[in-house]
Amino acid sequence: MKDGSAFLNDNAQRIIDGMIGDAERLRIGVSTGPLGECLIDAGAKAAGGVEAGLRMAEAAMGGLGSISVCMDRASPKWPFTIEVRSSQPVLACLGSQYAGWNLSSQDYFAMGSGPARALARVEPLFETLSYRDTASSAVLILETAKPPPQAIVEKVGRATGLPPEKLTFLYAPTQSLAGGVQIVARALEVALHKTNDLKFPLENVVDGIGTAPIPAPHPDFLTAMGRTNDAIIYGGSVQLFVKGSAKDASELAERLPSQASRDHGHPFAEIFKRFKGDFYAIDPLLFSPAEVIVTAIETGDTFRAGERDLQMLERSLG
Amino acid sequence: MKDGSAFLNDNAQRIIDGMIGDAERLRIGVSTGPLGECLIDAGAKAAGGVEAGLRMAEAAMGGLGSISVCMDRASPKWPFTIEVRSSQPVLACLGSQYAGWNLSSQDYFAMGSGPARALARVEPLFETLSYRDTASSAVLILETAKPPPQAIVEKVGRATGLPPEKLTFLYAPTQSLAGGVQIVARALEVALHKTNDLKFPLENVVDGIGTAPIPAPHPDFLTAMGRTNDAIIYGGSVQLFVKGSAKDASELAERLPSQASRDHGHPFAEIFKRFKGDFYAIDPLLFSPAEVIVTAIETGDTFRAGERDLQMLERSLG
Amino acid sequence: MKDGSAFLNDNAQRIIDGMIGDAERLRIGVSTGPLGECLIDAGAKAAGGVEAGLRMAEAAMGGLGSISVCMDRASPKWPFTIEVRSSQPVLACLGSQYAGWNLSSQDYFAMGSGPARALARVEPLFETLSYRDTASSAVLILETAKPPPQAIVEKVGRATGLPPEKLTFLYAPTQSLAGGVQIVARALEVALHKTNDLKFPLENVVDGIGTAPIPAPHPDFLTAMGRTNDAIIYGGSVQLFVKGSAKDASELAERLPSQASRDHGHPFAEIFKRFKGDFYAIDPLLFSPAEVIVTAIETGDTFRAGERDLQMLERSLG
Repeated sequence: MKDGSAFLNDNAQRIIDGMIGDAERLRIGVSTGPLGECLIDAGAKAAGGVEAGLRMAEAAMGGLGSISVCMDRASPKWPFTIEVRSSQPVLACLGSQYAGWNLSSQDYFAMGSGPARALARVEPLFETLSYRDTASSAVLILETAKPPPQAIVEKVGRATGLPPEKLTFLYAPTQSLAGGVQIVARALEVALHKTNDLKFPLENVVDGIGTAPIPAPHPDFLTAMGRTNDAIIYGGSVQLFVKGSAKDASELAERLPSQASRDHGHPFAEIFKRFKGDFYAIDPLLFSPAEVIVTAIETGDTFRAGERDLQMLERSLG
Repeated sequence: MKDGSAFLNDNAQRIIDGMIGDAERLRIGVSTGPLGECLIDAGAKAAGGVEAGLRMAEAAMGGLGSISVCMDRASPKWPFTIEVRSSQPVLACLGSQYAGWNLSSQDYFAMGSGPARALARVEPLFETLSYRDTASSAVLILETAKPPPQAIVEKVGRATGLPPEKLTFLYAPTQSLAGGVQIVARALEVALHKTNDLKFPLENVVDGIGTAPIPAPHPDFLTAMGRTNDAIIYGGSVQLFVKGSAKDASELAERLPSQASRDHGHPFAEIFKRFKGDFYAIDPLLFSPAEVIVTAIETGDTFRAGERDLQMLERSLG
Repeated sequence: MKDGSAFLNDNAQRIIDGMIGDAERLRIGVSTGPLGECLIDAGAKAAGGVEAGLRMAEAAMGGLGSISVCMDRASPKWPFTIEVRSSQPVLACLGSQYAGWNLSSQDYFAMGSGPARALARVEPLFETLSYRDTASSAVLILETAKPPPQAIVEKVGRATGLPPEKLTFLYAPTQSLAGGVQIVARALEVALHKTNDLKFPLENVVDGIGTAPIPAPHPDFLTAMGRTNDAIIYGGSVQLFVKGSAKDASELAERLPSQASRDHGHPFAEIFKRFKGDFYAIDPLLFSPAEVIVTAIETGDTFRAGERDLQMLERSLG
């Protein structure tokens, strides 16, 4: 991962170009914003759908992830399941897919995800990631119902050093099908993020696969957010392949599943209400898959912990 | 979906071009017919196979579907399962994939499917679909062992307004592997067709996923047809994402599974014989998946009805 | 399959070109060897990973296979499963993927697999395969930790009639993630190879699908080899579609699963040690999937035999 790479945004740009070409198939809306930025609506005014959500997730991972829909009867009521894989899980998930760039302003709430983050590098997380993107175009994913206001487009332009016409904003609200799909496609990402929180060395995570059932969308933002989180927290499964000792892998497996969190055991929307909507009061260790498999590739040992909670899934997903 | 689109046939043409390039991989026969039409044999004299069937299904859906083979141990004897998805289910399934164009003549029985139908628009079904194709080439799928006779090529040419050399006929008999695969890849389509029969407004169906096990082919036409139908009727699962009220979604879920039909409960081939081969005497509501999940995206409710019938699958698929 | 085809190596070359373009995503090392040969390290000094293993398997099958990762809860501890399909199973598996070309020298042990074998045609197996490749470049897959020494590059050049700069060597050790993935992607190939050993006519095998769980890598060669073999022998499932009589299909189904072997019932590494590392002393009939489904497409009958052995999987894979 030498300095001066551009593949995260270049890959995402190729995915965006493909989405524009497949606009009818994906039912997305493509337009040009007031500053010349490219706007892709995947679920706000446009219908969007599962396919649009899959492509959003691919773009969000900077082209370093493989995302598909598989059957998993382990969640009998939600057999259709998102599977996400990456042989570059740290870069794909933390360097790109993580919604870590706070772009909120007075009247617009948005956490930016996608490879534009790796050009901007304004988040502390990038202190632990050596990748530097030098692409001449950038892609940002927003979990919102509205395109970014002018001030945010300008902010992203400044931070990435790119003119607005080189920026693409791909957005869909939490309540939409595409929005829900691209969120549960973060099953691997939340595992990576918690792995970092647990101080497990990121350079030791070499590969990963994650799954989570496709939740039903809900028109209420809080309920929709609750469902997408619960799909991962109570229905997600992740396997990580890591370097290092068996002891470290075993500890990671024990601590990684959502059940290791003090807030585990209630639907996410309830927890959120209990903390009066203060996201940062919720135990960050809650955000992780239900079921974890960690394989220590240098010792050959595999450790498993956590389990899916079908009752909670039913209670949350309906 | 404005007037003057061409993507159904243009997409299908790209899939056909890809099939021709992969002819060895797919074991298809490519030739030019007497009027200059392109003929692709995917299972008559050519061996064809599962891969050819998957591509046939993609072409039949006008490129608006994603089709793959997944594992589903819910049908333990037939774990290999076709999964079909579309974020344009109405257009992909009814505007293109449905075998609704009667092209039979005295000595040739064929129901045409595929995007050429959307150019010809000779079926009553198109009164409910606003899409109009304006492509300069057309693709028609035929579930037959023989290429279309000259009179049918001419008929398709007249109806689509295209010269024969701009037409592709892709065919495989019911008894072939590719034929069987492309039929069970209709798990979503039969659900959409019945949804329309039930007067549920098609514009409210926004996304869909369907699965059905790959049945063993059978050399006897009637048995082969019975198996492909039973794979869906007794082994198919579909999830639809719909707009509208929870009540409408609930009613759709109740009425959509095959068990809601008076003819449910017998292998299809037996039913067919009982009605002395009169297709139109069979309850049209039988043609639908065994298991149905309907999610009302505007209310967040999900409704389930029906179930797979493994005993019937064993009796039929052997 | 007429004389003078080139698609096995041409397809593989396209896959190699794609791998080089996706080098970051796959974490492979691409370099040029001393004689000008292209070297792709997918798991020795390079990290490689699951994605690299999938592409290796695609190249090994000469582009005639479809390989993906699916969920199969039937192996609850190893739900992530490789699925491999081909509608050209004989050519893909035996003409290309089988590691049948002994390229070992005094200080280098390697069995070559991949489409270069079909150009060289030095193995007795090619007496039963009429395919002759005439490509102007060739791809060879090696299950090794080191690139081939000069003498082997020259040997492959002589046997294929190509200059070294037209050769690509794609390698990963058994102990690596990519190595393990590309080995279990041989679930279908081992079935085909045993089918040939059992004197079932290869021309009657028309299609096939196979699965096997992704085993944890192990740093010890013997243990790693044991696990990859056990993933297939005790965890693999295969369905073959064959021509010919029901009796022949039934006999094939009975004899094809690994349990039909006298050496079945112990982890492969133990068997290997018992025979003091003499591969050829092990019953060759052991190398086959646990569970077999054979469908006789000309009679419509399906036969099943064998079953997965989860206890043995746990004992071996850990």
